[in-house]
Amino acid sequence: MEFVAAPARLSTTDAQFEHDFAQRLHWSADTDAAIEQRVADILADVQKRGDAAVLDYTARFDGLQVSSMAALELSKQELKAAFEGLPTEQREALESAARRVRSYHEAQKKANGESWSYRDEDGTLLGQKVTPLDRVGIYVPGGKAAYPSSVLMNAIPAHVAGVEDIIMVVPTPQGVKNPLVLAAAYVAGVHRAFTIGGAQAVAALAYGTATIPKVDKITGPGNAYVASAKKRVFGLVGIDMIAGPSEILVLADGSTPPDWVAMDLFSQAEHDELAQSILLCPDAAYLDAVQREIDRLLPEMPRKAIIAKSLSDRGALILTRDMEEACALSNRIAPEHLEVSSRDPHRWEPLLKHAGAIFLGAYTSESLGDYCAGPNHVLPTSGTARFSSPLGVYDFQKRSSLIEVSEAGAQVLGKTAAVLAYGEGLQGHARAAEMRIKR
Amino acid sequence: MEFVAAPARLSTTDAQFEHDFAQRLHWSADTDAAIEQRVADILADVQKRGDAAVLDYTARFDGLQVSSMAALELSKQELKAAFEGLPTEQREALESAARRVRSYHEAQKKANGESWSYRDEDGTLLGQKVTPLDRVGIYVPGGKAAYPSSVLMNAIPAHVAGVEDIIMVVPTPQGVKNPLVLAAAYVAGVHRAFTIGGAQAVAALAYGTATIPKVDKITGPGNAYVASAKKRVFGLVGIDMIAGPSEILVLADGSTPPDWVAMDLFSQAEHDELAQSILLCPDAAYLDAVQREIDRLLPEMPRKAIIAKSLSDRGALILTRDMEEACALSNRIAPEHLEVSSRDPHRWEPLLKHAGAIFLGAYTSESLGDYCAGPNHVLPTSGTARFSSPLGVYDFQKRSSLIEVSEAGAQVLGKTAAVLAYGEGLQGHARAAEMRIKR
Repeated sequence: MEFVAAPARLSTTDAQFEHDFAQRLHWSADTDAAIEQRVADILADVQKRGDAAVLDYTARFDGLQVSSMAALELSKQELKAAFEGLPTEQREALESAARRVRSYHEAQKKANGESWSYRDEDGTLLGQKVTPLDRVGIYVPGGKAAYPSSVLMNAIPAHVAGVEDIIMVVPTPQGVKNPLVLAAAYVAGVHRAFTIGGAQAVAALAYGTATIPKVDKITGPGNAYVASAKKRVFGLVGIDMIAGPSEILVLADGSTPPDWVAMDLFSQAEHDELAQSILLCPDAAYLDAVQREIDRLLPEMPRKAIIAKSLSDRGALILTRDMEEACALSNRIAPEHLEVSSRDPHRWEPLLKHAGAIFLGAYTSESLGDYCAGPNHVLPTSGTARFSSPLGVYDFQKRSSLIEVSEAGAQVLGKTAAVLAYGEGLQGHARAAEMRIKR
Repeated sequence: MEFVAAPARLSTTDAQFEHDFAQRLHWSADTDAAIEQRVADILADVQKRGDAAVLDYTARFDGLQVSSMAALELSKQELKAAFEGLPTEQREALESAARRVRSYHEAQKKANGESWSYRDEDGTLLGQKVTPLDRVGIYVPGGKAAYPSSVLMNAIPAHVAGVEDIIMVVPTPQGVKNPLVLAAAYVAGVHRAFTIGGAQAVAALAYGTATIPKVDKITGPGNAYVASAKKRVFGLVGIDMIAGPSEILVLADGSTPPDWVAMDLFSQAEHDELAQSILLCPDAAYLDAVQREIDRLLPEMPRKAIIAKSLSDRGALILTRDMEEACALSNRIAPEHLEVSSRDPHRWEPLLKHAGAIFLGAYTSESLGDYCAGPNHVLPTSGTARFSSPLGVYDFQKRSSLIEVSEAGAQVLGKTAAVLAYGEGLQGHARAAEMRIKR
């Protein structure tokens, strides 16, 4: 069977552009009411019956029949054995990726994640204490889309933050375990791991059961059931974000070999038929050249069916007036991954306001960032980069304000506080402030 | 009518302690299905009908009949006039509080909110760019619990972050405007303000209407309808947190005048009958002394009915074995406000892991922090301090990872990425990395 990858060709000077552009970008995060109801039922059942409910759902949904929860725990020995059983090059690649991800997140913690304080002129101390979460749960998808790199990207920032108890859950349909996932858990220093998944795993982590410890936050991607369950337990525990389909946007000035850019578009499209790959360039001939490379390279790709559908349904090659306009369009999209494939990427970077990760220059393929450059690959999708950030050490820390008002400070602040408190009709607040004022 | 404030007297050495303690702490965040459904309907209607729906609900719920949305906007002139019409001491108190809140948040941004980057040994650049959100919505409750201080606490961090468009919404039932709230909006530099509230205001901010601009994030407290609406639009826009009833926990070593502590407990209890005030102390005689001050001071309090009910239903004076045990109990509660009313607060502070804000020493009444010490008064409630943080500049910023792989870096990283990508069955990722490797 022959596949054709035909991304839409758009031009910003077309009268129809705004309409076509909006149509390409459209993606509905609307949830399925049937899924919502099933998830609500599963959560309620796990909250009520604990381990017994988790065992039932695991048997039903994952085809995994075991007699006790203990059989669903992966021992440290098993994780270690998985690592040791890998071919040398996979072992080395995992370790090297983990090392780089760790250094990056250590730099992140040092730059933006340390406690701070100062004293004002009255000797009053003000600041914030930054502390790690006690215990977190990491959801790792299982089955056909099992990504060991996601284990590293979730567990390592938690480790760097100082979380002392990292619990991994990963479904293993029909009991089939992915050795790379187990090995990644070993390398990343996961503390406990269970072969459970779906809404029941989220429920177990959020409420706790006799076997699964209740966590403070749940991170990691999952299918619609997992996303719905995470959204429902949000508030009782923290969650990271609700991920939509993955996207790449490439801003090209035409200086990068077109086959590199074609492959970068493939690397997004191959994830999923709903994934989105968009190329913006002010040079029509370059767009033609990339389309030729798409046509040439597609037949070689094992995942060509997915790539062809994703590019044809959701992809676009867009001709812009200039690079400035391309940057402005990129800000409207707020893409998860943004490649600035230009000879002069630092000229454009300051114009780019909203993106999960910005990949600068022709050598920075998104795939290097996905695996081992160091930054996190868990990134805001579907335009949420407008208000949210890559997963990071900060997701595994929280802050407590520190205030120590000096006796002198209380004299001044007490008057201000009392005026405002009386203004709000809160006399207890006012009196508490006034009591600290010397008569 | 005589009111009695009788907080539970517990002791950690009682056999019944764990049971009684759990019972006192119990608070259910369970949502009301009827409210949930009404909120879902309001959101869908505003999404569909825009301004017309907002006008209808505002007429129905706030008793505010106007012919067009324009009549629901507060002009800058009106905000300014409200400020200028205040008594001098209120004007000065608002300005002084705003100044201190601004300095604190500027220090916070400088300490933890600036962009950073570094280059590795191969010349590869890694870092994060920190940028402000474009536009945020601030929900300010109206009616009887209208808090001008909350306007400062929400708008100022957004301003310091660099948000260029801060939209305030505040319901004005029957058209009654609170001049302190309007003045606070003026002082805090709110860009636009609308007299709308409830789920319809959240919907208007999240979806945008012809009149109300769509925002990127919505912050600020509200009633059950507002909380439910925020939770539903989460993902489409960012939200801060879902607030539960307010709480204070006082750790006392017995050195603070007992009337100060009694008034601090009142200052929480007066908010709401569901508010929670707890005192932990290893000295039984001191607990008795505080109870005597509660009895003595209660009749003087205008909000004595609320205080008496809150303290009797949810308050507790708990005798602990020692201060260490008090700190450990505090960590289990993870209180919103934590006063360390001790002669030696810095001895105990390092033992305290989970709290929204920590008030150190006898002079630091919670009320000083609520209004003007500088730190934010929007704090995680109901134990969510285990995983979340005070509202801050970071809530109005987001991060984009920066990666610029050098040619030399691509040679090394390309091999690692390719091994891992082939291991995950993502050949497009692998090929994109390999193309950057020189042959």
